[in-house]
Order: sequence, then C-alpha cells, then structure tokens
Amino acid sequence: MTYSNKRVLLSKRPDALPPADTWAHDVQQITDCPEGHFIVEQHFISLDPAMRGWMRNVRSYIPPVGIDEVMRAGSVGKIVASNHPSFPVGKTVVGTGGVQQYAVTDGKGWHLNPLPDAMMPKALGVLGMPGFTAYFGLLEIGKPQEGDTVLVSGGSGAVGSVVGQIAKLKGCRVVGIAGGAKKCAYMKETLGFDEVIDYKAGPVFKAIRAACPDGVNVYFDNVGGDILDNALANLAPKARVVICGAISQYNQTKPAGPSNYLSLLVNRATMEGFVVFDFAKRYGEAAQQMGAWMQEGKLHSQEDVYQGIENFHETFLRLFSGEKLGKLILQVKD
Amino acid sequence: MTYSNKRVLLSKRPDALPPADTWAHDVQQITDCPEGHFIVEQHFISLDPAMRGWMRNVRSYIPPVGIDEVMRAGSVGKIVASNHPSFPVGKTVVGTGGVQQYAVTDGKGWHLNPLPDAMMPKALGVLGMPGFTAYFGLLEIGKPQEGDTVLVSGGSGAVGSVVGQIAKLKGCRVVGIAGGAKKCAYMKETLGFDEVIDYKAGPVFKAIRAACPDGVNVYFDNVGGDILDNALANLAPKARVVICGAISQYNQTKPAGPSNYLSLLVNRATMEGFVVFDFAKRYGEAAQQMGAWMQEGKLHSQEDVYQGIENFHETFLRLFSGEKLGKLILQVKD
Repeated sequence: MTYSNKRVLLSKRPDALPPADTWAHDVQQITDCPEGHFIVEQHFISLDPAMRGWMRNVRSYIPPVGIDEVMRAGSVGKIVASNHPSFPVGKTVVGTGGVQQYAVTDGKGWHLNPLPDAMMPKALGVLGMPGFTAYFGLLEIGKPQEGDTVLVSGGSGAVGSVVGQIAKLKGCRVVGIAGGAKKCAYMKETLGFDEVIDYKAGPVFKAIRAACPDGVNVYFDNVGGDILDNALANLAPKARVVICGAISQYNQTKPAGPSNYLSLLVNRATMEGFVVFDFAKRYGEAAQQMGAWMQEGKLHSQEDVYQGIENFHETFLRLFSGEKLGKLILQVKD
Repeated sequence: MTYSNKRVLLSKRPDALPPADTWAHDVQQITDCPEGHFIVEQHFISLDPAMRGWMRNVRSYIPPVGIDEVMRAGSVGKIVASNHPSFPVGKTVVGTGGVQQYAVTDGKGWHLNPLPDAMMPKALGVLGMPGFTAYFGLLEIGKPQEGDTVLVSGGSGAVGSVVGQIAKLKGCRVVGIAGGAKKCAYMKETLGFDEVIDYKAGPVFKAIRAACPDGVNVYFDNVGGDILDNALANLAPKARVVICGAISQYNQTKPAGPSNYLSLLVNRATMEGFVVFDFAKRYGEAAQQMGAWMQEGKLHSQEDVYQGIENFHETFLRLFSGEKLGKLILQVKD
C-alpha cells in the first residue's frame, strides 16, 4: 500500500495578506499505517478565518503552525487503512487533518461523522465548527432575549448566517451586515433576516442607526474594524457584544482597536470573547438541535466548494476578499 | 437676605484640553428662597474626570451641560436658608450643586450628610461618588475572587486607590499603576498594594508582565489608551476588564481604541462598562461598609484640596496633568 499525499506546508509567516510563497507544496509517500493509527483519505478541507491566526507566532488559544509543517485545517474524509479499533476502514470521519490529501492519525480530536456522505461538507460548516461557534457564541455569550435586536456582521458567512437564523428562531429581530448586493439578497430572501446592510453601499453608522432605531441589544462581531466601531456607537443599554473574530484585521500588522469602546461605559454594556473549543463537551447538543432545525426546514446552510489542493492559495484568499457565499470549502480528493 | 454667588459657567465646548476661555465667571445675586427649595452655601466642590465628558455635546448617560449654564459638579455644603421641610437650615448636605458658591435647589438628588463637618471633603471622595464607583465597579463588575491578581490604573487616584484597597481586603494580590515616584510610594507604603508600576519610568507591557506573571484576572481601567492596551496584552484566562473611565482620552478628538482587544477572544475575557448611578439604591450599603473599614483603619483615603473658585480652571486641569494625589477638591467658600 502506498498513498501519494499532496500537502501544503507553511513556508513563511506573512505580515499582511499572505503571498503565494507563504506555502510550499510537496508530495509525501505514505507506506505505513502504524499500530493505533488510521489513514484518512481527505475529501474536503475547511477554510476558516481562524487559520490566519494560527499562522502567527504569538501566544494564543492553540500553538501556531510550525514552519515547514502541514497547514492546519479542519477536514472530513474516509478511512482507507486502519490499525485502530474504533476507526474502521470505510467510515467517514471529521477532524483536523490539515491541508493535505491523506492524514495519518491516532484519532485524537477525530470523530465518526454520522451524516450521510452527500452531506459531508456540512460537517465542516453548519454541523461543524462554524455552526457550533454560532450556536454557543450567540446563545451562551450573546444571551439573546425574545424581542431583542441582534446585529451580526459577516452575516452571509459560515458563522454569521447561522447566528442570524438562530436569533430569528429565538424570537429576535435580526439585522445582517455583508458586502455586496448578492450577499444582502441572500441574507434577506434565503436566510429571512429582517433588515440587511451592504457595508460597501454607504456609511455604516447611518445604516445601523436606521435599521436599529432602538439600539443594538446583541452585536455578534466577525469582522472588527470600522464595522465594530459603528456597531459600538449604536448599542442599546446593557448590550452584549460578542467578539468571535475580526477578519478585517487579520492581515494588518497592527490591528485597529475600536475607538468607540467607551460606548460600553455609557451603555453599561459588555464585550466578551470566546473560543468554541471550550464548549467541546456540548457539541453533541448543538449538532442535535441544529440537525433538527434543518430537518424542519428552519435552518438553511450553504457551502461554497472549490476544487483541487493546487488551488489552496487562491481559495484561501477568498476568505479575505469576500468572494464566497456561506462556508468556504476546498475539495482535495483528486 | 442676599447671597452673592460666584459662578463658573460653561462658555464654549473645547475639542482638546480645555483652555481658560472655556469658562465664564460671573456673580449672581440670590435674593429669594422659593417654596419647597433651600439654599446651600457650598464649601467644597468635587473635580472629577467625568466632568470632561459632561462638557461634550453627545448622547451619554446624562445630558451634557448647556452653554452658559453653571458647570455641573458634585458638592457639599451647609443649608443657609430653607423652605423645605426635609432640609432645615444648618444641616450639611451633599448633592450636585455645580461650580458655584451657592446652590438653590428643590432637594432632588441631595441628601443629608451624616459625617461630622471635619470630614466634609470625604463626602465627595471615599464616602461619595468616587468611593461608590470603586466599590460597585470592583465588586459587581470586576467580581474579584480570593487569590486573583487585580491590576488598577490611576491607582493613587480617588477611585483607583479605593479599588486597590478593597481588592486587598477581599484577599487579592493588587498591582497599581500611576505616574511618578511619589504616587508609587503612596500606593506601596500607604495603600499597601503588593506591586506598583510607574508608567512614566519605562515600558508598561514589560512592567505588567513582570508584576503579573500569571496574568491579570481583573483589570480596573480608569485611563484608557496605551495602558489599557498593555493590560489587555497581559490578561489571564476568563479575565474581567472593568471600564470605569479613560482619562488619557478625554481631551482627544478621536479617542484611541484598544488595538489588543482580540485578547478578549484568546482569553475568553470580558470587558464591561458601568455607571455608578445605576447603583444609587445601594449607596447606603457601600457607605456603611466603607465607613466601617475606615474606622477599623483598613481603608485609607486622601483628599487634595485647593482653594478658591477663581482657581477652578487651573485646579480642573490637574485631573489631566496628574498633579494631585487622591481625590481632587476645590474649596469654594470664601
């Protein structure tokens, strides 16, 4: 048995938007499946904004990816060889297999995927990390109450689209922010948000003020920068600001801080960060609830799937250019 | 009966550090005490950073001071005339009498001062608004646990000095930040803080890292700017950042936001603002507890008292230059 494994390695640490030479491509020959291990033929890998953070050599919630190591990424695929009793050949599994075609693993951090194969990409989206991030971030940190106005940035993205829909299911008024008419139409027509704001179309402060005349009770932030600042300027008393990410800032050497943060004082408001891994023991609960909502037709999800591990670099950049709709995924199985 | 009332009026709204012509001085002749009102001969007025905010024409937790109105300020004095049954002549009262020598009021927002006259200034400091701000801000928002490391900026000031001492009484390790050797000696020797940082003496990031090797559990911020940013970079997991004020930013047209705010995400931390007025119903509890601590010699307080309403402008600027120790007060009784 030999598997030719095309891999993408982190070659350099970029300061700004990663150039192509951030990555090195190679092919590894896998000839052995060690005792207690199994080999996953990876079908899809997940492209997430958090990956940009994992490339930085700073203290964070997990160690950075090392230079010349396979780039870290979530993935889903099928077991093609196994010396592990709990992970037999033929099963579909989800884990953090990295940007490569085959992953050899002892199973730590992997789990069997209960979804049918046709839904494999959803295990990286609404029924995976981004979905769980939306679920726990909104419900546990944002604590929306019925009748609240919930504002979400990146509202057409993998996390934001789920945040807004769960907020609707909880009886909130939902306002989504995204860039461009296509994403705004998606939020309004497909996701059912009450109001949408195209941040490329005009001043964001005025648009938020108009869409949220009584102020924002929960702001779920995926983007940072000016949009965060303008959301802070429109908080309602006792508002909760959920810091989930800051995609506008990930390629800045010195991120911009929210200059309107004193709105937290004026409005007795809270800004709180979280990391979805802290809720790992409750992923089952989230998967069950969201699966039920999907079956009832109450939760829509969309994956934007690109092809070929060779196209990793260009596809990864779509996270930052905004040229994708929903969950960004790369199919790496040739 | 006639009272000659020297007053300081807000004449212009400054963008930056207020110049002298921000204020107009006049003398009002008070000849009447209307039914249901009383007249306070004001002894001391309180100079607080919050006053700078009240001068801005923006939506905030209270309306701004109007142009040509008496500048708003807390005050303590004696009733010299009364047509109000609950506020008889001769009593000492505390309220928001403004920057003037006499206040005519219907009593709303005023209360009788239970302290002996010799302690009148303390009604504007440790046993008044700054003390209550420290008490509720630390205990209700910061929620310190025994063994926590509590970092406080403006640590020798009216609020910070009380925050640090209460944190010590609650079994925390306390690190105070202030500018200059005199204030640092005061925090260490008189207030009993465990460690002190002179922000004028060297890089603040390294100093916080050295003083808080396990990270900061509670950061109580009175200053904003670089010090807030460096505190954020040193948070412990699940830290609570209490936003009480931002004196470094009050004279900036565009305040700087904390560029390290994503530390909230990495550390699953919270940044929360509050306004002491929300705790008005519990002021009695705070006064009783802090009075008891003072009697037991466990709570030290210091007032820095300047003389003469004519010197309001120069004295007010000491809030921003840092040239004062403890609670800044102006004696306005000639």
